[in-house]
Amino acid sequence: MSNFDNVKFSNNDFKSLIFGRHSIRHYDPSVKIPRSELKEMLAEATTAPSSCNLQSWHFIVVDTDEGKEKLKKFFMKFNYPQLESCSAMVLFFGYTDAFKKYRDLWQGMYDRKEITHEMLEKIFATFLPLYEHASQDVLISDGTRDCGLVAMQFMLLARAYGYETNPIGGYDWTKAAAVMGLDPQKYFPVMAVSIGKPEKGAQEVETNRYPIDEVMQFM
Amino acid sequence: MSNFDNVKFSNNDFKSLIFGRHSIRHYDPSVKIPRSELKEMLAEATTAPSSCNLQSWHFIVVDTDEGKEKLKKFFMKFNYPQLESCSAMVLFFGYTDAFKKYRDLWQGMYDRKEITHEMLEKIFATFLPLYEHASQDVLISDGTRDCGLVAMQFMLLARAYGYETNPIGGYDWTKAAAVMGLDPQKYFPVMAVSIGKPEKGAQEVETNRYPIDEVMQFM
Repeated sequence: MSNFDNVKFSNNDFKSLIFGRHSIRHYDPSVKIPRSELKEMLAEATTAPSSCNLQSWHFIVVDTDEGKEKLKKFFMKFNYPQLESCSAMVLFFGYTDAFKKYRDLWQGMYDRKEITHEMLEKIFATFLPLYEHASQDVLISDGTRDCGLVAMQFMLLARAYGYETNPIGGYDWTKAAAVMGLDPQKYFPVMAVSIGKPEKGAQEVETNRYPIDEVMQFM
Repeated sequence: MSNFDNVKFSNNDFKSLIFGRHSIRHYDPSVKIPRSELKEMLAEATTAPSSCNLQSWHFIVVDTDEGKEKLKKFFMKFNYPQLESCSAMVLFFGYTDAFKKYRDLWQGMYDRKEITHEMLEKIFATFLPLYEHASQDVLISDGTRDCGLVAMQFMLLARAYGYETNPIGGYDWTKAAAVMGLDPQKYFPVMAVSIGKPEKGAQEVETNRYPIDEVMQFM
């Protein structure tokens, strides 16, 4: 455990959290989630793993009318119901410069005796050069996957706090970073997640999955 | 809920599952996880959302010595401890042809009255053309993120079943699909996750995270 020992979830039943999650597209617009709570949920979500602990993610939490107007510059109309009614829209961006904090991050872990010297040496000798010489494509791929990991934890945590979500991938990726004031050379959009309390009678979008045998094999 | 109403987890305490997850690199090599259980965990993990429910993922579960030998053709030596001792190594691939099943998938949902006709029309008019005309880059980006979502659920579910995991991104992505017998034009590697029971006295890799204020902003 660690920083989050004292957290109290309103629902701590994993089975209901994971299997009861469905996309909600209509929220009660009168519900405001305190910023402290949004921040807490995101901090907890970042317990997700990432490539070599790079944490190449950046979150923008849009919970004001002005912020939502900005999102309309690159969101599809199909997703306006969520955008307009949600308490907040959380944008998950990847960050290709994350590896520049890499040496300090791992040195700090060694200094605090969290990893062995052997591990530190291996990281510096094996992984640091990989990132320093990585193409932009590789950094984006890593960050995209790692944003998926942290976003999934965020969606489950949202339910533990009593909220519902909808993950949204379909917006204009060429505009997102610049409109939100980020350097598009370093930040790239991965997805957005709306969060709020469902509107009374809001229909969940129940979706089916392919039979597992269609998408897996043993070897 | 639905297909998984009767699932019994050995640990259903979300707080301990999510905050107690740490990478385990050394497993008890005598532990075999039944294939039925691995399949069940993956089926449950696919309750994760995906872009328009495309489910553009494919899993290869390696739990034999022969399979592990194949993995050595593209895994880094740094990750041999996990590879050699784990009960299974699960490879998460993205699948760029997933959208070709798209029309049938949503039509089936409409036929089973799971979505409205309005939703069906919107999906076909709005999203289907996007995928049909999408570049390979966009399909790979979507699939990479969605594999992150499903892999995160798999790692949490593994703990609910009493196992531990280690996510692995660092292997030779140019070789993975072909070595595993998949068409590299359609399948692309995203990550691997080792799973098993920790070796007695196995050290967890505890890692720190940046303070949340460094990676988020409100707007």
